[in-house]
Amino acid sequence: MTTTAPRSLRVGVLGCTGMVGQRFVQLLCRPGQPHPWFVLTGLGASERSAGLQYGAASRHWTLPTPCPAHVAAMTMRPCDPASFTDCDLVFSALDSSIAGTVESAFAAAGIPVFSNSKNHRMDENVPLVVPLVNPEHLHLVAAQQREGKSKGFIVCNPNCSSTGLVVVLRALDAAFGLESFIVTTMQAVSGAGYPGVSSLDILDNVIPYISGEEDKLETEPSKILGTLKPDHSGIHPLPIKASAMCNRVAVIDGHTECLSVRIRQRDVTSAQVQAVLENCALPRPSTCSVAHLPTLGENFKPLVAFPETQHDRPQPRLDRDLGGGFTVSVGRVRPCPILDFKMVLLSHNTIIGAAGGALLNAELAVAMNLISAQ
Amino acid sequence: MTTTAPRSLRVGVLGCTGMVGQRFVQLLCRPGQPHPWFVLTGLGASERSAGLQYGAASRHWTLPTPCPAHVAAMTMRPCDPASFTDCDLVFSALDSSIAGTVESAFAAAGIPVFSNSKNHRMDENVPLVVPLVNPEHLHLVAAQQREGKSKGFIVCNPNCSSTGLVVVLRALDAAFGLESFIVTTMQAVSGAGYPGVSSLDILDNVIPYISGEEDKLETEPSKILGTLKPDHSGIHPLPIKASAMCNRVAVIDGHTECLSVRIRQRDVTSAQVQAVLENCALPRPSTCSVAHLPTLGENFKPLVAFPETQHDRPQPRLDRDLGGGFTVSVGRVRPCPILDFKMVLLSHNTIIGAAGGALLNAELAVAMNLISAQ
Amino acid sequence: MTTTAPRSLRVGVLGCTGMVGQRFVQLLCRPGQPHPWFVLTGLGASERSAGLQYGAASRHWTLPTPCPAHVAAMTMRPCDPASFTDCDLVFSALDSSIAGTVESAFAAAGIPVFSNSKNHRMDENVPLVVPLVNPEHLHLVAAQQREGKSKGFIVCNPNCSSTGLVVVLRALDAAFGLESFIVTTMQAVSGAGYPGVSSLDILDNVIPYISGEEDKLETEPSKILGTLKPDHSGIHPLPIKASAMCNRVAVIDGHTECLSVRIRQRDVTSAQVQAVLENCALPRPSTCSVAHLPTLGENFKPLVAFPETQHDRPQPRLDRDLGGGFTVSVGRVRPCPILDFKMVLLSHNTIIGAAGGALLNAELAVAMNLISAQ
Amino acid sequence: MTTTAPRSLRVGVLGCTGMVGQRFVQLLCRPGQPHPWFVLTGLGASERSAGLQYGAASRHWTLPTPCPAHVAAMTMRPCDPASFTDCDLVFSALDSSIAGTVESAFAAAGIPVFSNSKNHRMDENVPLVVPLVNPEHLHLVAAQQREGKSKGFIVCNPNCSSTGLVVVLRALDAAFGLESFIVTTMQAVSGAGYPGVSSLDILDNVIPYISGEEDKLETEPSKILGTLKPDHSGIHPLPIKASAMCNRVAVIDGHTECLSVRIRQRDVTSAQVQAVLENCALPRPSTCSVAHLPTLGENFKPLVAFPETQHDRPQPRLDRDLGGGFTVSVGRVRPCPILDFKMVLLSHNTIIGAAGGALLNAELAVAMNLISAQ
Repeated sequence: MTTTAPRSLRVGVLGCTGMVGQRFVQLLCRPGQPHPWFVLTGLGASERSAGLQYGAASRHWTLPTPCPAHVAAMTMRPCDPASFTDCDLVFSALDSSIAGTVESAFAAAGIPVFSNSKNHRMDENVPLVVPLVNPEHLHLVAAQQREGKSKGFIVCNPNCSSTGLVVVLRALDAAFGLESFIVTTMQAVSGAGYPGVSSLDILDNVIPYISGEEDKLETEPSKILGTLKPDHSGIHPLPIKASAMCNRVAVIDGHTECLSVRIRQRDVTSAQVQAVLENCALPRPSTCSVAHLPTLGENFKPLVAFPETQHDRPQPRLDRDLGGGFTVSVGRVRPCPILDFKMVLLSHNTIIGAAGGALLNAELAVAMNLISAQ
Repeated sequence: MTTTAPRSLRVGVLGCTGMVGQRFVQLLCRPGQPHPWFVLTGLGASERSAGLQYGAASRHWTLPTPCPAHVAAMTMRPCDPASFTDCDLVFSALDSSIAGTVESAFAAAGIPVFSNSKNHRMDENVPLVVPLVNPEHLHLVAAQQREGKSKGFIVCNPNCSSTGLVVVLRALDAAFGLESFIVTTMQAVSGAGYPGVSSLDILDNVIPYISGEEDKLETEPSKILGTLKPDHSGIHPLPIKASAMCNRVAVIDGHTECLSVRIRQRDVTSAQVQAVLENCALPRPSTCSVAHLPTLGENFKPLVAFPETQHDRPQPRLDRDLGGGFTVSVGRVRPCPILDFKMVLLSHNTIIGAAGGALLNAELAVAMNLISAQ
Repeated sequence: MTTTAPRSLRVGVLGCTGMVGQRFVQLLCRPGQPHPWFVLTGLGASERSAGLQYGAASRHWTLPTPCPAHVAAMTMRPCDPASFTDCDLVFSALDSSIAGTVESAFAAAGIPVFSNSKNHRMDENVPLVVPLVNPEHLHLVAAQQREGKSKGFIVCNPNCSSTGLVVVLRALDAAFGLESFIVTTMQAVSGAGYPGVSSLDILDNVIPYISGEEDKLETEPSKILGTLKPDHSGIHPLPIKASAMCNRVAVIDGHTECLSVRIRQRDVTSAQVQAVLENCALPRPSTCSVAHLPTLGENFKPLVAFPETQHDRPQPRLDRDLGGGFTVSVGRVRPCPILDFKMVLLSHNTIIGAAGGALLNAELAVAMNLISAQ
Repeated sequence: MTTTAPRSLRVGVLGCTGMVGQRFVQLLCRPGQPHPWFVLTGLGASERSAGLQYGAASRHWTLPTPCPAHVAAMTMRPCDPASFTDCDLVFSALDSSIAGTVESAFAAAGIPVFSNSKNHRMDENVPLVVPLVNPEHLHLVAAQQREGKSKGFIVCNPNCSSTGLVVVLRALDAAFGLESFIVTTMQAVSGAGYPGVSSLDILDNVIPYISGEEDKLETEPSKILGTLKPDHSGIHPLPIKASAMCNRVAVIDGHTECLSVRIRQRDVTSAQVQAVLENCALPRPSTCSVAHLPTLGENFKPLVAFPETQHDRPQPRLDRDLGGGFTVSVGRVRPCPILDFKMVLLSHNTIIGAAGGALLNAELAVAMNLISAQ
């Protein structure tokens, strides 16, 4: 292991004006803390916005830290590979109506894409990676590169509500064998983008429906928790049954999920489940060349498990920012009279569940030597 | 069947200053629509408030219709039977710290009690009645009267989140046989009373814990859905398994519940489940002497089932006031990959789920000749 | 005075699918309480929606009472006069981008228009009427009819935040002479229509800006509080100075306004101001042929003034529905160290402040014999 | 000027379990960034909590960063000077019911007190200091020390809603001469402490009343903006007239205030006012021995003035955390038809408006050599 990593890769953000695009900008350009590996050089927007300054077009900046002045002054480009030849990789926060073809074009043009969009998630040789869970799946990109005869590729992170869930599920599967789960979500409005959810739909209200969400929660975990084939040609999905019920609630950031699981091992106690969750470690691929990813830092915990004494946690307002929004939290572990155990989990839907997840995937890809400067 | 019923029974409200007490006052004394059977003559409060006018003591009136002036001018009494000898029955919205003994004292003194408190709910000969579900359980009061050698008795309505749930469960059990269910609730803040939930705990937040609530949701339905023994001496509980996860969300009124059920009958389709829910009828005990209860009116529907085209309903802000807050609603009926079917249901927690439920129970008891003027 | 009024006028609603359009439908077609004078026969929508059933197109029904089934089944028409020849009058909830020309076309075609849109409000011979304030201004329509050589005309109600304000200002002006006022509003999200305000902009937030609103609040009251010229040819505006600061807050319905006024009369006490507000009576034009408007009922109070003991009122959740949403409320009357008196007022922005105001204006026009069946 | 300052002063927090107490702990003990001058050694709580560990007693930790583990393990002490003899100074977040006498006792015992409580604010020789506004008033403590024959003293910071206001008012007064102002506030629920405002009072609601608040806003600014007498014996208050209207809104943190001011200078333009606000500098007392306070850092801006293009700012969710919650923001500068100019301002009520303000006052006192180690 060495700690030298390619530095100063130039990166772009496709779909930079939306909420996830803004998060990419925020995470890449923290005031006083420039990203040690990545320099943001390209901002891709719609044809309508290309040519405008980012500060002018991104009128609805929705984050509580201001847009950095030097980014606000950058001129936006159209989202085609020819406009991003200076970039070593791009992040995609594109709308799913166009993400499919645009991302494929970038990969074909030799530019690695780290995408938050849903379009390519279930493609056979596209790794669907939660960096806290299955970083080794990134090796799938070799299959893409072979097939596409390009050094470009696509890496996806899953749906925001799948992300926190699989961190918990992986720990349980590794320890006890996972058989099935039922999950009911209470999701933040930021997950729907801007303007997204109307205030009239969410003040003093719950919306018990999110289009397409339950299907993603029932299918993505099998792939994420699956096993990379020895020849890196695909994933053996984990054979689990899943049932999801998704709701939107009056929360800005942070998806809360009530989970009940059935495990294969019998005679497990709540205390054992709690211990497994408390000791959940960050997976580290053998080919990873650095001691820790720059965004996560040295003592990063992927999962915080609240003890029984803190019986009303996690809560989105209090716990979504644990680990800078990269840490998932879980609490209220107790037996379930129908399946085996139930618990509550929480994750920050636009950090670890979206832009932050894609950023970590790119850091991992660099650390695993899967990517290099143009 | 006759439509004559005892009229002008004098009623009291114990615990009149809290949120449920205020609902009792509101439902009994609608402006321009006095209750046709019940006249509110007694208001019971703590020792500290007894002797004060209701309007002065109930400073924190929390309902969007004003407190009626003639009630505001009434003087409150202490909550002991000697102060309520003029009342033919009382409603109890007492805090559970005192409800147990106070309610027993009233029953022993010959005054029927219709209670929203939890204390006596699981007592063997106390009927736990949701008026939309199991009115015939009211016959249990005869056992109480025999045992207590008093014409007084106690009738309980269940926890607010159990109420809507059992309306749906009963319809499913009657049609298909109910085996087990998992339910995740998103409960309104009014369920915790006033001041109840701090604004700091619920703005931009979810609290994934409500003290004692999950236990009630897992035990009360068995009793409510059980069968009255032929000699009216007790209830055979329905043998079902239940698992509940309870959450508090930023909603004023209306508990939303995500339900997944296992039924005994196989090869049932979603369309059949939907049809059963759409055709759910109000149960009518054979001894009921009136065509319809005065508070419910003639064309009352106990359950509204939204069709598949209204795929984002029920919602608390839009649907909690259906049927004046007495109608339960359900939607999103679809198969569950783990159990059999899942759906979303909603009920108004302080109307049908609390004061309104107790009021209907009293109307039923009158209509079934279980109660009479002093 | 007689109580006979033209009955069964046929009415239409232009712009029927938006929030204000939905309120018109709700107020005209209450379940079990059809409007005694008006029958809703025409629903006007955009070209895109014309031909569709109302129930299908108005997918986002935002009100807590369901859309009446017979209205949901009505087919929508394009918003041109030729499609509304069967209507004796129309209500307009049109978007301001088209309301100007469409409303003029209806008036020219002989169809009276009662409009909630801003376009014609300040037109010289268009009455700008708050029915609780200046009904006699309706006589201005004669000038319109003469000029347009048509029995059609346009009547406007003002901006939702002007409405409650002028009820209070008129009472003060009548008693003490009004000189100037400063008002700061906290406005509900329903005032922005649907989808309107994004949840991301209002949860845990205040938006201190509403486009165009401050200008309306500073100019409309002068006209509304002005004097009808004796020949009914125009309005002498009241010479007052006004300053407004408008904010959007996380409230569904009900605009709260902090008002400070300077009056002409000196040596006035808070008690005198309070008394004037408590005794505010509904103005009744001399030509009005009915004892009371059907929507308001017999004992309607236009203004409720909370006494000093209720020092934290009015509040939107508790008081917006006073008088069915037609009553304005005011409280906290006290001296202002800079101007003369300050107070807080509240009005329901989509009932008296929008659709309900226009409905009352039409009822008044009928009662004043300004309109007749086609 | 030197940059050496007394280091490692030992400090205590009185009233450590409430919301402001928690903020003191958070600001003094940032993870990985211990305060360079102050070491938290004493936690003072009620008699009931003294002897307990902080982590156990402070069950309702309300902040989104966890309570530091080493503080959670500290044992709380009673709030009497004898229990704090090891402390060089204390911060007080005591309830006003006891703050008056307790703080006096500490000062008499020689322990300087930096208090957020209201009790001593208007005392003649107690400096009422907003560190961004009038740090030189701290010299008043010499008068206290002389009078009390003790090296102890009391320094107060003002009410949370006065704090942001006087930052703006001072800039205007310095440039144009301030004559009077009207301010309407929309205040966050955290200002009322925990549990504070009931969720039933604030969801879908505004409360147009905060006990005692308007009086503070009308009186504190005169003292804060006043002039220190040359002999440091008292303050000449600024002769201004003020009128305040205070409201509670559904916001967690951040008080928004709509301000209208009359200034003495005539013929001033909005652009001039904007320029003055944009160039507002942090006052620096001549006796200050450091280049910048440790909590504020080098490039701290006390006031951010949004340009006209950002016409809907400041907003609490987006702007309360500017400068770590220590920067005030202002926007929408425009003429007022009644007074001279109006604008909107925002400040973080529990950071610069409470605990953070007191912390800066203590840093200033150290930097001005007004305090030393025991």
